[in-house]
Amino acid sequence: MHFSRRIEHCPMCGTRVEHRVPADDNRDRAVCPACGHIQYVNPLNVVGTLPVWGDEVLLCRRNIEPRKGFWTLPAGFMELGETTEEGASRETDEEAGARIELQGLYAVINVVSAGQVHLFYRARLLDTDFHPGPETIEAKLFREADIPWDDLAFRTVKMTLERFFADRATGQFGMHCADIR
Amino acid sequence: MHFSRRIEHCPMCGTRVEHRVPADDNRDRAVCPACGHIQYVNPLNVVGTLPVWGDEVLLCRRNIEPRKGFWTLPAGFMELGETTEEGASRETDEEAGARIELQGLYAVINVVSAGQVHLFYRARLLDTDFHPGPETIEAKLFREADIPWDDLAFRTVKMTLERFFADRATGQFGMHCADIR
Repeated sequence: MHFSRRIEHCPMCGTRVEHRVPADDNRDRAVCPACGHIQYVNPLNVVGTLPVWGDEVLLCRRNIEPRKGFWTLPAGFMELGETTEEGASRETDEEAGARIELQGLYAVINVVSAGQVHLFYRARLLDTDFHPGPETIEAKLFREADIPWDDLAFRTVKMTLERFFADRATGQFGMHCADIR
Repeated sequence: MHFSRRIEHCPMCGTRVEHRVPADDNRDRAVCPACGHIQYVNPLNVVGTLPVWGDEVLLCRRNIEPRKGFWTLPAGFMELGETTEEGASRETDEEAGARIELQGLYAVINVVSAGQVHLFYRARLLDTDFHPGPETIEAKLFREADIPWDDLAFRTVKMTLERFFADRATGQFGMHCADIR
């Protein structure tokens, strides 16, 4: 998890940084007065899936903070060395131990206050033999009528599920973009 | 620009970090032996636009490295405090000084070796009065037949333009996902 994004020391030489606008820039950055390194801090991607089995979707109950005990779609921070698709599949394996086939990018949601972009892929479950990892209390299939709307972990999960059920009712799955401030 | 992503000192306390797999993790991280801070390094988003005026598209000739002197679509690193759309618009303003109306997410391209995800939006130019900033030598409209294919700065720009002209020929603009290793 990324609890704080502001840095105090130069990650290259260890000197205490100055927070100021560098030459040829227009934003506050962490600038090292000793070695001159500028440390940029940028938004991060959270990648996940919406796994489907018949008329049910897979949710995971979180075993870690934030939002421990609440239900989420399998998702987590994208890592270096992988694509968004690979990251979404990896998180589905780590959090639910579920085997899936990806079905395309479904939602791109900016979470501005968190400095995050959430990317969700639709996915087809290949079986219902789940093996949740340590970050998950349980992985469970839900029909639309049984979704625990009041116990969802994140607004991005709620938005993605709402759009999915609305699209499913029409039989047409679009690609959805949304912003949360 | 992000020239290097590996860090040597703790950005919180300045102590030299260890590169090892922390408890409850499965990847090498920068771990501080003094304060315990773990510094994660994750892929970054590059956001840009494909600005269109009639049958022409807008390209910018880069005035900065990498790829100085080569042609690109206006794009750059997404910043904290903005959405992907806002970042794409900002980069179009900074690099081309062009007024646009966004027309939706068009391409999501993973550039795995660079640790980047490039997101391009289609855009409609509102006029042809360009005011390129210091990062751009010139901003210019090109018909498909005149695109400087051999002098494009990045593969993501080439892929996005190729898909755009192919889609335009059919009259149907899809949303494209691609990976570059």
